[in-house]
Amino acid sequence: MVKFVDVDNMARWIQREGVEKIITGMVSYLEKDYSEWERFDLIPRVASHTPFGVIELMPTSNGEEYSFKYVNGHPSNPARGFQTVTAYGMLADVDNGYPTFLAEMTLLTALRTAAVSSMVAKKLARPDSKTMAMIGAGSQAEFQALGFRGTLGIEDIRIYDVDPEALEKVRRNLEPLGFNITVCSTTEEAVEGADIITTCTADKAQNQILGTQHVKPGVHINAVGGDCPGKTELVEDILDMSTVFVELPEQTRIEGEIQQKPDDYEVVEFWKVITGKEKGRSSDEEITLFDSVGFAINDFSALRYLRDDVAGTELETDIDLIANPEDPKDLFSLVAEVPSLV
Amino acid sequence: MVKFVDVDNMARWIQREGVEKIITGMVSYLEKDYSEWERFDLIPRVASHTPFGVIELMPTSNGEEYSFKYVNGHPSNPARGFQTVTAYGMLADVDNGYPTFLAEMTLLTALRTAAVSSMVAKKLARPDSKTMAMIGAGSQAEFQALGFRGTLGIEDIRIYDVDPEALEKVRRNLEPLGFNITVCSTTEEAVEGADIITTCTADKAQNQILGTQHVKPGVHINAVGGDCPGKTELVEDILDMSTVFVELPEQTRIEGEIQQKPDDYEVVEFWKVITGKEKGRSSDEEITLFDSVGFAINDFSALRYLRDDVAGTELETDIDLIANPEDPKDLFSLVAEVPSLV
Repeated sequence: MVKFVDVDNMARWIQREGVEKIITGMVSYLEKDYSEWERFDLIPRVASHTPFGVIELMPTSNGEEYSFKYVNGHPSNPARGFQTVTAYGMLADVDNGYPTFLAEMTLLTALRTAAVSSMVAKKLARPDSKTMAMIGAGSQAEFQALGFRGTLGIEDIRIYDVDPEALEKVRRNLEPLGFNITVCSTTEEAVEGADIITTCTADKAQNQILGTQHVKPGVHINAVGGDCPGKTELVEDILDMSTVFVELPEQTRIEGEIQQKPDDYEVVEFWKVITGKEKGRSSDEEITLFDSVGFAINDFSALRYLRDDVAGTELETDIDLIANPEDPKDLFSLVAEVPSLV
Repeated sequence: MVKFVDVDNMARWIQREGVEKIITGMVSYLEKDYSEWERFDLIPRVASHTPFGVIELMPTSNGEEYSFKYVNGHPSNPARGFQTVTAYGMLADVDNGYPTFLAEMTLLTALRTAAVSSMVAKKLARPDSKTMAMIGAGSQAEFQALGFRGTLGIEDIRIYDVDPEALEKVRRNLEPLGFNITVCSTTEEAVEGADIITTCTADKAQNQILGTQHVKPGVHINAVGGDCPGKTELVEDILDMSTVFVELPEQTRIEGEIQQKPDDYEVVEFWKVITGKEKGRSSDEEITLFDSVGFAINDFSALRYLRDDVAGTELETDIDLIANPEDPKDLFSLVAEVPSLV
């Protein structure tokens, strides 16, 4: 039997444990896996692009466990009442190839994306950071805010979105949790005095959500939304003003903000900051930029954190996904007609 | 909700409908999809190789529906009580990227592999074929036999395997179904008088299951077992004696019998035989060879056949895999703590 966490149990887990606590725990799994980066099978995700959106498979393995995630990205979905991003994923045992754990990952991806942003900002944002500007008030916004509060203590959020209802939603969700939310009517207003700028918009186009005039010395830019070919958020010149940190360079060059740049554009692989092979922020004036696209190891860490945390609780159920004949060479025995029983 | 067919319901479906009927129905779906080959996203499968075996993801799409299969191949599994191959798979709606159907595919893959072999042999084997030699008596053997009876009327099976218990298993499973089974003690004996030779062994090595001395004019070779890098079954010279038909050339050159040959080795894409762009067998003396490795479209056809056949019956259940907040931009609403309910 494969262990399974469905949407209801995932929601129950998050409600019970709390978003901040989960993200903080997930960050510790991520840091461990990033510190062992070279053990992993580094496969860029496999994307199937259509006029409507993209469907991706994101596999990886550390030689002991294998994981993959199914995830779609359809920018026009919300207007039709669907999520932009839905996902589910699985763990398997590399030794015998059997799946071991299946989970919804729409919610889990929201948590892990915020956890990765938080892990990176912990290393790259100025330690005295107090205020985060957020451009984009979609599904990811609350998770980012809670992740940054859990890991960096950020409580002041200045947020802007083209959709006033989405802004109101964020205020409604976050103010009761103790955040100071400033709803802004322009990007200029949002970035005023911000130590961290998070961009997280969903339009599938080369946009200029953030211009050079919005970026002051010492800021950390957490660029989340530009994550597939033809979809960017930053004016190209911002890249040249910043030190750019990435997950897997060969994937980010196709999908991230640096798709605007030549293939040899200089970037720092973030896992090397974790292991100490590369330095993170070098001064209070440096502009650091995390060109986040989402790599399979992030999901590997998130799935394992979930699996370990719900193990033995009623939040996991069994799902009958693996045919298991008594004689492994006699698969047919499972389907042979048995006249005596008819 | 995603529709789901678990192992029990899959077995129930196969017992109820019968292997032959399902394979015959599946062949019609395969023929239709192969005739529309150029509509498909032709992505070679993504393999993660380890010392123990391989884990693969096999995605494809026809622009309307998307499918993928998770499948492992671990040759040493049966000795430890596990299946060599287990699998499961999924369909999704390309329009919004939402998964629609999930199913166990260990049993379904056994059916679809036999269905593909049968579809190809219908076009390539001599129409007067009566006898099939089978080298390999593992999990796939009974499905191949039933597929060939359903589509070509084959009832005489001459079978050889190094494992006498596996041979006895095939006899025990197939004789009650009306087959004439001749258990042989060598490959020479098995191929005697055979019109079709099916090789389906599981060892992950470059083997020589079949030599040139075993191949007589007019035979159709259904080479199923050589399906990943370093795993072949045929002596290389057999390829030169035959016209070689393949699924997706760029995948077969890596995984199939033709991995023994240069990258420009001449092959016929089988889908072109279905559409009439290429001819199949050209004479009663020609040796035809299907270098089967298994391509994603096969699983696309099999999953859709299953989905359509069980629709509305008690064989499908619902699985809660897609988070679905009322406001698609308010994913957080699913996990927000609700103080009034605590």
